[in-house]
Amino acid sequence: MEFIKIENGFSILVNGKKIITHTLERPWIYAGKGEATYDMFRGNFKIKDYLIEKVALDDFEVYKNVDGVIVTFSKRGLNSLKVLFTVEDERTVVKFLENPDKLNRLWLRIDAEKEEHIYGCGEQFSDFDLRGKNYPLWTSEQGVGRNKNTYITFKADERGNAGGDYYTTFFPQPTFVSSRKYYCHVDSSVYMDFDFSHEEFHELQIWGVPEKLIFETGETYVKLVGKLTGLLGKQPELPEWVYEGVWLGIQGGTEVVLNKLENALQKGLKVGGIWAQDWEGIRMTSFGKRLMWNWQWNKELYPKLDVKIKELRERGIRFLGYINPYIAVEGDLFKEASKRGYLAKNNNNEDYLVEFGEFYAGVVDFTIPEACEWYKGVIKKEMIDFGLSGWMADFGEYLPTDVILNNGVSAEIMHNAWPAIWAKINREAVEEAGKLQDVTFFMRAGYTGSQKYCTMMWAGDQNVDWSLDDGLASVIPAALSLGMTGWGLHHSDIGGYTTLFEMKRTKELFMRWAEMATFTAIMRTHEGNRPKDNWQFDSDKETLQHFAKMSRIYTTLKPYTKALVKENSETGVPVQRPLFMHYEQDKRAYDIKYEYLYGRDILVAPVYEPGKAVWKVYLPEDEWVHLWTGDVYRGGEIEVDVPLGKPAVFYRKASKYVEVFKALTEI
Amino acid sequence: MEFIKIENGFSILVNGKKIITHTLERPWIYAGKGEATYDMFRGNFKIKDYLIEKVALDDFEVYKNVDGVIVTFSKRGLNSLKVLFTVEDERTVVKFLENPDKLNRLWLRIDAEKEEHIYGCGEQFSDFDLRGKNYPLWTSEQGVGRNKNTYITFKADERGNAGGDYYTTFFPQPTFVSSRKYYCHVDSSVYMDFDFSHEEFHELQIWGVPEKLIFETGETYVKLVGKLTGLLGKQPELPEWVYEGVWLGIQGGTEVVLNKLENALQKGLKVGGIWAQDWEGIRMTSFGKRLMWNWQWNKELYPKLDVKIKELRERGIRFLGYINPYIAVEGDLFKEASKRGYLAKNNNNEDYLVEFGEFYAGVVDFTIPEACEWYKGVIKKEMIDFGLSGWMADFGEYLPTDVILNNGVSAEIMHNAWPAIWAKINREAVEEAGKLQDVTFFMRAGYTGSQKYCTMMWAGDQNVDWSLDDGLASVIPAALSLGMTGWGLHHSDIGGYTTLFEMKRTKELFMRWAEMATFTAIMRTHEGNRPKDNWQFDSDKETLQHFAKMSRIYTTLKPYTKALVKENSETGVPVQRPLFMHYEQDKRAYDIKYEYLYGRDILVAPVYEPGKAVWKVYLPEDEWVHLWTGDVYRGGEIEVDVPLGKPAVFYRKASKYVEVFKALTEI
Repeated sequence: MEFIKIENGFSILVNGKKIITHTLERPWIYAGKGEATYDMFRGNFKIKDYLIEKVALDDFEVYKNVDGVIVTFSKRGLNSLKVLFTVEDERTVVKFLENPDKLNRLWLRIDAEKEEHIYGCGEQFSDFDLRGKNYPLWTSEQGVGRNKNTYITFKADERGNAGGDYYTTFFPQPTFVSSRKYYCHVDSSVYMDFDFSHEEFHELQIWGVPEKLIFETGETYVKLVGKLTGLLGKQPELPEWVYEGVWLGIQGGTEVVLNKLENALQKGLKVGGIWAQDWEGIRMTSFGKRLMWNWQWNKELYPKLDVKIKELRERGIRFLGYINPYIAVEGDLFKEASKRGYLAKNNNNEDYLVEFGEFYAGVVDFTIPEACEWYKGVIKKEMIDFGLSGWMADFGEYLPTDVILNNGVSAEIMHNAWPAIWAKINREAVEEAGKLQDVTFFMRAGYTGSQKYCTMMWAGDQNVDWSLDDGLASVIPAALSLGMTGWGLHHSDIGGYTTLFEMKRTKELFMRWAEMATFTAIMRTHEGNRPKDNWQFDSDKETLQHFAKMSRIYTTLKPYTKALVKENSETGVPVQRPLFMHYEQDKRAYDIKYEYLYGRDILVAPVYEPGKAVWKVYLPEDEWVHLWTGDVYRGGEIEVDVPLGKPAVFYRKASKYVEVFKALTEI
Repeated sequence: MEFIKIENGFSILVNGKKIITHTLERPWIYAGKGEATYDMFRGNFKIKDYLIEKVALDDFEVYKNVDGVIVTFSKRGLNSLKVLFTVEDERTVVKFLENPDKLNRLWLRIDAEKEEHIYGCGEQFSDFDLRGKNYPLWTSEQGVGRNKNTYITFKADERGNAGGDYYTTFFPQPTFVSSRKYYCHVDSSVYMDFDFSHEEFHELQIWGVPEKLIFETGETYVKLVGKLTGLLGKQPELPEWVYEGVWLGIQGGTEVVLNKLENALQKGLKVGGIWAQDWEGIRMTSFGKRLMWNWQWNKELYPKLDVKIKELRERGIRFLGYINPYIAVEGDLFKEASKRGYLAKNNNNEDYLVEFGEFYAGVVDFTIPEACEWYKGVIKKEMIDFGLSGWMADFGEYLPTDVILNNGVSAEIMHNAWPAIWAKINREAVEEAGKLQDVTFFMRAGYTGSQKYCTMMWAGDQNVDWSLDDGLASVIPAALSLGMTGWGLHHSDIGGYTTLFEMKRTKELFMRWAEMATFTAIMRTHEGNRPKDNWQFDSDKETLQHFAKMSRIYTTLKPYTKALVKENSETGVPVQRPLFMHYEQDKRAYDIKYEYLYGRDILVAPVYEPGKAVWKVYLPEDEWVHLWTGDVYRGGEIEVDVPLGKPAVFYRKASKYVEVFKALTEI
């Protein structure tokens, strides 16, 4: 870090890159006060801010001490903030030391360049390059449709504001990577809004004074992401059994599930596991079947599951379940948690109940250490000991802002932190059971900290459609933006989940989605919220054949995929990567958001539109072999045939895995 | 005005009412800077503000001089504003004297009470009592649907952001009346946003430093509105011929128009005039027929119109036309205006052309005195001398913010002022022709100044539907809010105008709308933008009979209506009045937005829902005679039968017009 005096101000340089510039005329820091209101309905938030003051803190006093440079910013002595510019563990750190005026709104300007690209901010489904817009950072339902100009979003907005928008996400994070090759991370869980729409600066709006801002540069994006994951944490390798086939998301009880499995196996499907979300029973509501939310094996729906799990395991097929951080009021767990005082409270010091659609559930208060231990105990006893090899650790993004938590911290601040805490509970349960090499869990909600606690993300609830903002395509920028946020393992519900209004999953959508999922770390299906309206993997012979073929491609790729997952665990370089990560000189690569590199050696261009026989692909300059024809391309925009079963996939001629890739064409 | 010192501050009292309170802890004035962007497409605006600073100007220095009290507000000497609190013409006036720091954003807090009601802000279609929300004040298209939760609005938003919202209006005005019985008027035409959602203060956001704020109190609402119109101006009486029957909005050429007229007259319709918007010819576009926008009699479409106008006049029927402030590029007028340099310019000093849907038009620059004289000349020669007795003076709300005007003032500032300038042009043309007793014009766009220049407003372009925000019902709060803004004459297109998507005007809607219009100053029809999709006054015999009956009720009411219009011209008390205006003690009356007093003696409760045989009416305490049955009610919530042709209308038993009212039942 360099602190350089300039006329009427100073600049902060990180490895020679000017990141912050403050002058009397163009201050870098604005501060003030605001009063926010948060309205939440089933995970969808309406957030309003009444801004009382936003004041340029142009006055500054500088002095240096052993720690670094301390600057007190103010407006003629008012609204003062004391800030330390320092280096910690080779990182440039901006620390907020004193906030005597109790300011709760900050706007920080980071130097920008006109042609700069910005990536990250967690899991972004609509945009990959974030330059040109602002991104509120608040974990929530991702929304249905996520585009105010679509009819689906309009209809969903009629239902409790459920439509979402271009920025709504389960996994936001105040972290971005600039094409100037530095990252910026804000260490705080308050509501933020990063605005990349200004030509000369990025404005980070922060509803509170954070611990610190952290900056590092990297010579390459690979090194930069490595440094970012050095800060935030990396994911462990996945259990070996993961790579043995698809995870069938099926449900309906022991008999139904096993029948589906046997049928699929007969047709040549490679199956790694059965994921049955209803392992703990169902309830009937006017919306249809819902889960019981009392995290114990339901013997009525799944008779003999304890025995069947063992039998399946001997055949190399695992069984996975489901949990979330809520417990329904009707269950034993709720009674126990309530009695022990482990539930978050409302303003009247009663257990806070969240409405989930004709039933209510309590919120386990993870700020109480004993409550965490207890919930981990539930996971260990009811799930791991029972024989589950993994589960969906659902939700995490719903924490209402008006719950009273035991640690005394406002839920407005804990809200964003909650998904990572929920991940930590799951992770510790698995680790304490000594099962990290054998058991895994996957989440949709995330925040800073998920990197080191969660074992796998899935992309949440896509629509069962082709929409850019909420369909098949949206999963690609989601994986890539998470990759730039220090998260390297991603997958999605094959065929999408949300089935509302006139939506129905088509056969073609399922097949195209399966083709994409083949080139991710995990292949997992979901029946969707209205299974009967959706085309399923076994809806006809052709689909099952196609899916079986894809599953064999996936298992055949195992050595490569496993190596990528290992590389991610060691270096933090994500499994799915943007093209520019390995082709930094290629200007066009910075704008590609619907293709990805699957590791160093494979390029995937998923077909995300219906009815396509031919697909346009952009290839950076290299020697690319088209997987199905063996044709070699040297880069540029090309077109290839994409019949079902032969997605647009290319591998590098120089790869050491060429023999593995060639074997894929034999399947 | 009283200036009272309090601890760390002062209060401003107007006739004993505390209006402004400033203390170091709770300043009344915030100021700063912002950068706005205005996107306009066919009169629909997207306005964004990047707020740079909003600073509490808590520091204050007071000194008194002969003019009043001068206070310099600042933040430790920064962001200073010098303000004079004074009295001018018995009004309390807050004058902004100096703005040395060139601040362009102001937020002023007016003391509020929790139970206070707020009315005015121009023509508000969705709300009458404005307490609880904020109202951007910017003249624009009112929007199609005006409710983001409706499908119509969603569809319209797909077409160039045309859906509107609860606050979009052709006629905004920075003026409100409080139930604390004072008015507040801001003398400026910059963009403003009045926020009445806070419990303890109203916040007036002003994008610039205004000339002044003006306050007056009144013992009664009648007196208060009188004072407000004393400030803003009053409308003259309407020409005598106006009351002789309906104005038929018909078009299609001399023969078509006269045939429709003769047919209507035969069926007993009382006709005051023909309003033919296409008197100046039409053009064909892919959207359908559009007008020529070259303001001269079109002899091809209207052969012998010069003679026919005279013949009609002898029979007591007037002929009205249409004009707007744009001139199409193909016409003679454009060529002339361009040659003379009377058109507003673009950044390249070329004539600015506005796209209106497959044709372009120039903007006559009304900041050039010679251009005004020239356009008035066009009106006088081509319209008044030709024999027109009136016209729709359309548009006024479209002035793009990026035109370059001759007076050097930013179009961002002139935009809101434009409708009143357009009114002034028309008014002066009529007055200079010496025809104010014989010729009238009606407008949809308005702003401060319209009160003294315009002769009649109409409610703009309602949907041909029953929607609350943009259908029949919306016209009622529109009339009432304008009444509280100092505007007393209102009418609407009978049956509505906008016919898009699946909308079609039904027979019932036309009839209910006609019933309401009977009890307004003017009855005028419009075929709508898709005449063939809409039920018209002559679509069947029953409709024409019903309409004829309503027209006779209207003409029979003439002595009463005429007296109301006269009263408005003398005292400023509007023709259509909210119930609380004459029943101040009735708390419930302050919430009634879909009924109105038609003058002192008639109460109208329009049926604004389809399929209603019975209608609920709220009556303030008085002796009310139901028009059709003669039943007397003493107030409260009642139900009456409302068969078609017998709208829910009541008159005061104590009225001196009882004999006139009784005569209505004989028709």
